[in-house]
This record gives sequence, structure tokens and C-alpha cells, in this order.
Amino acid sequence: MKIILDCFGGDTCPGSAIDGAILALCEDKDLKITLCGDESVIKAYLADKSYDSERIDFLHAGEAVTNDDKPAMAVRRKKDSSMMKGLSALADGGYDGFVSSGNTGALLVGATLIVKLVDGVQRASLSPLLPTVVDGRTTILVDGGANVDCKASMLREFAIMGSAYMQSVLNIPAPKVGLLNNGVEEEKGNEVTKEAHTLLKECDVNFVGNVEARDMFSGVVDVIVADGFIGNAAMKAAEGMGNSIFALLKNYITGGGLKMKIGYLLLKPAFKRLKGLMTSDAVGGGVFLGVKKVVVKAHGASSPTAFKNAIVKANDMAKADVCNKIAAALATKEEQ
Amino acid sequence: MKIILDCFGGDTCPGSAIDGAILALCEDKDLKITLCGDESVIKAYLADKSYDSERIDFLHAGEAVTNDDKPAMAVRRKKDSSMMKGLSALADGGYDGFVSSGNTGALLVGATLIVKLVDGVQRASLSPLLPTVVDGRTTILVDGGANVDCKASMLREFAIMGSAYMQSVLNIPAPKVGLLNNGVEEEKGNEVTKEAHTLLKECDVNFVGNVEARDMFSGVVDVIVADGFIGNAAMKAAEGMGNSIFALLKNYITGGGLKMKIGYLLLKPAFKRLKGLMTSDAVGGGVFLGVKKVVVKAHGASSPTAFKNAIVKANDMAKADVCNKIAAALATKEEQ
Repeated sequence: MKIILDCFGGDTCPGSAIDGAILALCEDKDLKITLCGDESVIKAYLADKSYDSERIDFLHAGEAVTNDDKPAMAVRRKKDSSMMKGLSALADGGYDGFVSSGNTGALLVGATLIVKLVDGVQRASLSPLLPTVVDGRTTILVDGGANVDCKASMLREFAIMGSAYMQSVLNIPAPKVGLLNNGVEEEKGNEVTKEAHTLLKECDVNFVGNVEARDMFSGVVDVIVADGFIGNAAMKAAEGMGNSIFALLKNYITGGGLKMKIGYLLLKPAFKRLKGLMTSDAVGGGVFLGVKKVVVKAHGASSPTAFKNAIVKANDMAKADVCNKIAAALATKEEQ
Repeated sequence: MKIILDCFGGDTCPGSAIDGAILALCEDKDLKITLCGDESVIKAYLADKSYDSERIDFLHAGEAVTNDDKPAMAVRRKKDSSMMKGLSALADGGYDGFVSSGNTGALLVGATLIVKLVDGVQRASLSPLLPTVVDGRTTILVDGGANVDCKASMLREFAIMGSAYMQSVLNIPAPKVGLLNNGVEEEKGNEVTKEAHTLLKECDVNFVGNVEARDMFSGVVDVIVADGFIGNAAMKAAEGMGNSIFALLKNYITGGGLKMKIGYLLLKPAFKRLKGLMTSDAVGGGVFLGVKKVVVKAHGASSPTAFKNAIVKANDMAKADVCNKIAAALATKEEQ
């Protein structure tokens, strides 16, 4: 597999991106990575690093998309940026996936306009893979923020795309699909979720009904379907609660005398394990579903490990041929 | 102040409700509580309790609204229930507030139809008071789940009602109002939040702009305005994250050997303080804003402490004359 990595645009670029690439190469000996961006800067950074140079190459790009760029303008005006050059190379063929930690909106619009959407898909989704309390189980949230004001028919597509992902990439035979709602009862919901509920019951996915946002991390379903505005709010509320808990605990411990500090040292492995599971480094951004080729978004402040995880995710998706599986699943559904 | 307490309908009723009433009486010597529900059951429960009998009286109700009752049907058909009798007594006068842990939908419809809405209010909101990481600071979420498919003009009313609450009940001179959105930038949002943003800028509240759901617990604003579907999802996502963190920590500690267990014992006061702040017992349900008299919802599984907190909240609201303040604030806004 050949993955293109956008080395510019994110807050920790290019260092963390390049270090992440080196880590990813160690995980899979058949993986090749093309580092996209200012070649001289990348090569200078690599100079004193140890890595398998046979499996790294370069795609020069003279500029970078920033977080201040308007998405549509970035696509139109910054054709020589690492993000748009990388997406164009992906679209032209010869590569299996693209990873970027840059401007999310620009990446979405770029993927949609340059790489193009799978036939029959109205909009690409940006889907985080959420950790759960059940060991080894992950839940995908479709959509986590790419699309607001979704129609019910879009939620139906999200269900099909999320199912295809969980089935092909994570080998879950009949992924359980839940509709994010304000109650589990069938009659609950707003206009869109009520209509979506009906569509999902008729749709060829393993629809188990409505779920509430408190089930995002409980592992009861494999796919959670939501309007992107709502998925985004739920994600960020969870993040806010997680941050608050850790901030308060830190305050209490810092102000709590020697006993507390010893307690903290003894529990440190548990806290570390928890943070390893529940923080954004572990989640590693999100995957775009509905695009013709694999595009993965690493979060803006990605560490080398987060980049490595995002690259591994792209590699897994490419190996599973998930984009074609999504196309096939949607084609089958349309025929019905 | 005279508060009516619905002693039937919640999961922990009537015991926790009655015990909560006894606790609340200890907090304010001018408070009187009317226990509403099956009088013989309540009196039997009180028989061996110690309390100031001068400040407790009874309103008999022969049945109870259950969580399976459809809201509109409960209002129409269960006029002799503790919830509807309590609301009717509140509407008839002589009482200052009503507290219930029963069926939320029935309480909302009952409050709207029996107690009636403040002039100019389209819909009552159900607003939880969220704990924050800033000592002693609370953020009110309007709406936390009562109304789905809100129009922008409703969000404007929510801003005015939330401000009036924070100003009159919590004595915050110019409460900061944030609009829950999928980004802080002004141009972000879905159709409704974009329109609401414009309305809020023109409205006579201290509107500080868009906030993201991760700021629900950061204390940066005093009032967060949201569609109830989205507010509900954000609340439940945060709850899910909190539950997951505590469940995982418990697992790790239980499976972690002696060192971990000692660490846990040493940190127990910090965990206890955290749970005291961040769990639903501390939040104690939500307040209905926009109803002509004070109505407070305690959550379904309320402990005696949670009931006490809900009664204290109703008492504070009644003392602050919040319903009339909301009416005045809305009337002023309408004139503009």
C-alpha cells in the first residue's frame, strides 16, 4: 500500500507528521509512505533520523493550507499546497490513501471536489472511531461534524457507509446500527430522526433502533448515525466532560497534601491507561466515508503516535478496499 | 415560601422524596412543604421520622403518573395523580413552587397546560444547571431537552430566560450568553444557529458569541443556548463520558493489585469530591423556564440529597421571583 502524508498544515507539522510516518513504517513492512510538502524542509528534518529510506519518497509542494483559509478558496487557489497536491496525486492513481492533520473543511471540500464522491453518495461524512468501555470494541460515529442540516436520506447513507466500514475494516459480520436520538422509544425524535427511523427500518443494515448519546462509549452499537451538527456537539461535550474530570482531579490532588500525591503515584498506571484509551491521541482523528479513495483526518494537534495511528488506519482501510465496498453496498441498496 | 412536592412517580418515590423534604426543611426555617400523593402511605413513612411537623402538610392524590404514560394523556386522564393535582394547586395560587421527579414529558405538558406559560413565551425550556471546573460557577443550558426542532426565535427567548434566571437567582449582573454551535466562528452553524446568531446580536442580553459543547463545563459562559435535541445529546454524551471514565478506572483498580487499591483509598476523598460535583445528584435535575410559576424537575433516580437540592432550587427561584422577572425581561424585549 502507498499512503500520501500531508506534512504541512497541522499545528504540530512537519515534525510530528514525519516522526509518525517513521513509526507507521515499523508497523507494516509492506507500507510505503510519500511525504508531501516542502521537500527541502522534510529532508532536512529526516537527515538525522533512522528509517527505511526505500519505503519513503517525496512529493514536493511549495505552500500549505492554513486553518484560516476558507475551504472552497483553499481548493481553488492553493493548488500547490501539500493538501491539494496530495489529494490530486491520490485522485490521479498510483496511491491508496491520503492522511492530513490540516484544515478539516478544506480537506472535506478538497476530497469531495478532487478525489470525488462514490456514486450515489450525497455527502462525505467525517467519522471518528470512538473508544468504548468494552475491551477492544470501537464505535464509529457517522457523521461527526462534516455535514449540518442533514436530510433523512443522508442519515440512511451514513448507516450504509458506517456498516460497510465496520464490516470490511474491523471484520464485524453484522454491525449493529443505532440512530442517535433524544430517547430510545420509536416515537421519539425531531422531524429528521423520525423520518430516518422509518428509512433505517426498511434499509438492509442491522438497525437496532434509537440510541442516546450516553451510549457513544458503551459499546452497545457498532455504528451511530447522526446529523453532523449533533454528532459534533456530542463529541465535544464528551471531550469537555473528560477534560473537566481530569482537570478537577489534578486540582484536588495538587492541593491535597502528601497522601493524595502518593495515591496518585500508585494509580498512575491506571490514569495512563485511561488517557491512552479515551483521549484524542488514541482516537486519532476520523475517516472520510463516501469518498472514492481513502482519506483520513488526523486531529490538528496530533502527536507522532496520533499520526502513526491515522496512517495505520488509512492503510487498513485501503487493504480492506472499503471505498469499493461502500460503493457496492450503496449500489445494492439503490436497486432494492 | 410554600413548595409542593410530588412524592410519587419517580423511581425512588416516595421514600427519597419525603426524606429530601425533611432535609430541605433544615436548610431554610421559613420553608413550608406540602407532600402530594397517597396521604396514608406518606404518613406511614413519616411515622418514625423526626421533622418539624408545623412546616409539613399534605395534599392527597389517589394515583400517580408513570413513565409509561403518554404526556398529553396523563394531563387529560390522570387529574387525580400527584403530579397533576400538585400542578393544579400551584396554578390555583397559595403555593410558590412545585417539584417532581416523575415523567418529564408529562411534567412539561402539565406545566404548560395547567400552570400556563409566561406571556410571549412560545415554549417552556427544561434547563439543567451544569457544574463547571471554576469553583462555585454554574452554567445553565437552555434548552436541555424539552423542545426539538426549535426556531431561531425560540433560541432568542431561551437566551432571555436563561439570562433572567442567572441574574435574579444567582445574582450574576450581566450573564454571558453563548450559542451552542459547531465552531466559534461567526459564520459557522446550521440554518437555525446562523439565524439565531443574528437575532442574539440584536437582543438585549450579554451575547458573547458561539461556544462549542466542550465549553459546557469550562465556566466561560453563564448561559448556553441550544435546540433541545442538541442540548439533550450534549448532556447525555457528557454523562456517557463521565460514566465511562469512572467505570474504566474502577475496572483497572479492581484488576490492578494491592498498590492500586491503596492508591485508590488515598485518593478516595478526591474521587468523592469529584462525584459530588459532576454527577446527576449534584446537578439535581433541571428547572422549567417560561412557566408562570416555579416548576423544578428532579431526575428520576433522585436520592434524598438530590430531592433536597431540587427543593432548595425551587425555593431560591420563588424567592428571586424569577418567573415575573422572565415575564418582565420578555416584555421589555418585545417593546424594542
